[in-house]
Amino acid sequence: MLVFLNGKFVPEEKAVISVFDRGFLYGDGLFETIRVFNGRPFRWREHLRRLEAGAEFLKIKLTYSPDHLLALAAELVRKNNLPDSLLRISFSRGVGSPGYSPKDARAPTLVMSLRPARNPKNLPQWKLITASIRVPANDPLACFKTSNKLPQVLARAEADAAGADEALLVNTSGFVAEGTSSNVFWVKRGAIHTPPISAGILPGVTRVVVFEIAAGLGIRVHEKNIRPNELAKAEGVFLSLTSLGVVEAIQLDGAGLKGSELTGRIRHAYQLKMNDES
Amino acid sequence: MLVFLNGKFVPEEKAVISVFDRGFLYGDGLFETIRVFNGRPFRWREHLRRLEAGAEFLKIKLTYSPDHLLALAAELVRKNNLPDSLLRISFSRGVGSPGYSPKDARAPTLVMSLRPARNPKNLPQWKLITASIRVPANDPLACFKTSNKLPQVLARAEADAAGADEALLVNTSGFVAEGTSSNVFWVKRGAIHTPPISAGILPGVTRVVVFEIAAGLGIRVHEKNIRPNELAKAEGVFLSLTSLGVVEAIQLDGAGLKGSELTGRIRHAYQLKMNDES
Repeated sequence: MLVFLNGKFVPEEKAVISVFDRGFLYGDGLFETIRVFNGRPFRWREHLRRLEAGAEFLKIKLTYSPDHLLALAAELVRKNNLPDSLLRISFSRGVGSPGYSPKDARAPTLVMSLRPARNPKNLPQWKLITASIRVPANDPLACFKTSNKLPQVLARAEADAAGADEALLVNTSGFVAEGTSSNVFWVKRGAIHTPPISAGILPGVTRVVVFEIAAGLGIRVHEKNIRPNELAKAEGVFLSLTSLGVVEAIQLDGAGLKGSELTGRIRHAYQLKMNDES
Repeated sequence: MLVFLNGKFVPEEKAVISVFDRGFLYGDGLFETIRVFNGRPFRWREHLRRLEAGAEFLKIKLTYSPDHLLALAAELVRKNNLPDSLLRISFSRGVGSPGYSPKDARAPTLVMSLRPARNPKNLPQWKLITASIRVPANDPLACFKTSNKLPQVLARAEADAAGADEALLVNTSGFVAEGTSSNVFWVKRGAIHTPPISAGILPGVTRVVVFEIAAGLGIRVHEKNIRPNELAKAEGVFLSLTSLGVVEAIQLDGAGLKGSELTGRIRHAYQLKMNDES
């Protein structure tokens, strides 16, 4: 497997960075995970826009233009012969002076790597738990995909321990925010609902695709806060995420969730859309 | 400069890790910065206890015993001929499967590196600002020195922009928590005060040394919450941190702070204690 690292394509085992890279020292960086389908990154522009917004917020200069990166990503896909894959862009502030001040770090680190995509034939079904760690409701960093992901790591470890597939993060106001690597939706009276950005969530690229699909199908979407115990009573719960698209949630904290035919319809439309755009 | 990396002493430029190290991907790790004085790490046991507590919380197996690490640290100091330095231990979960789940990461990364210490002759004096980012008041992760430090990086960047030396983090309840790399103290009616652990602070090793010093000098210490505007009116403000010990704060958000003779006495006692223990 070849990895793109700071301008070069190198074998995986030679894709190394300094132990003084601020990404390693402080999680001082950002990332994106993008689905490559038929050799094309799905919703490239939206992912790159989020990466650029994060880079601007953290004041790390993105030294490649989105178009240049896209060409390099395409080259990476070709070289590895992986037209059906997940692309990860890792972007950190690179090496600087010791200490938190970012002022002397001038050469950011940019990595692109691929892994094969999973293509489940049927609608994937996941068991969820609610994580015990709370996330801040109004965290300015929550809307960027930063490399500070310990709450997500801890929550996923809890899911693993409970035999679940994903953990829902609840915010300090007691409302459901998101999954560790997914946005959450629920069905109520024929409409779909999802927490608002102010719940402290990452504005998921796939979340917006679901909005588009719902509009196309004539299904209303409401952004709304919900507590875990209300979510458990929904007419259907599903997740949106880059790697798998739409996933049905079948269990929350050990109790079964109702299924909605809307979930299957949205997943089907998602697959069609990804096909269309590739 | 030689760096200790996963069992070997390697030249700085060869101290590299995989771009798939979870420390780089997610900030999935911990660190400690320890003052080495006369060739001996000051308060080694306290720093290691915090590292072990963090490793236990994150469920990363620390593969070296504190005594073994101490011997390796001493070897690093000798090899680099830096008896007066700052030692950084960086410890991450290493490489695992893609995604947040830590379950397949079984070989943690451990790095130790040194940099020369600064030894200011006089009492260091710092200008402070209050950072605009808020930190959660009851974050279970706050009491470990994790590698998720973006709030600290952003706050320090704000201090840089304001021409200040350090930024104070205020918590979501509106109380002063700590500096980005220091604990904060203030003087009132002959006693010293500092925010409680519940303010969302890192339990600093030097903070405890200040407690011991105060006890020795017969000065009372109170753990108490304070708002930034009250701090501005204190009879004296100082910071405690591993790299410099005790630092006087002379300005907060552009306004001068009062000086207290207690600060100089505590700093003096700190220097004596470090000498005594080395």
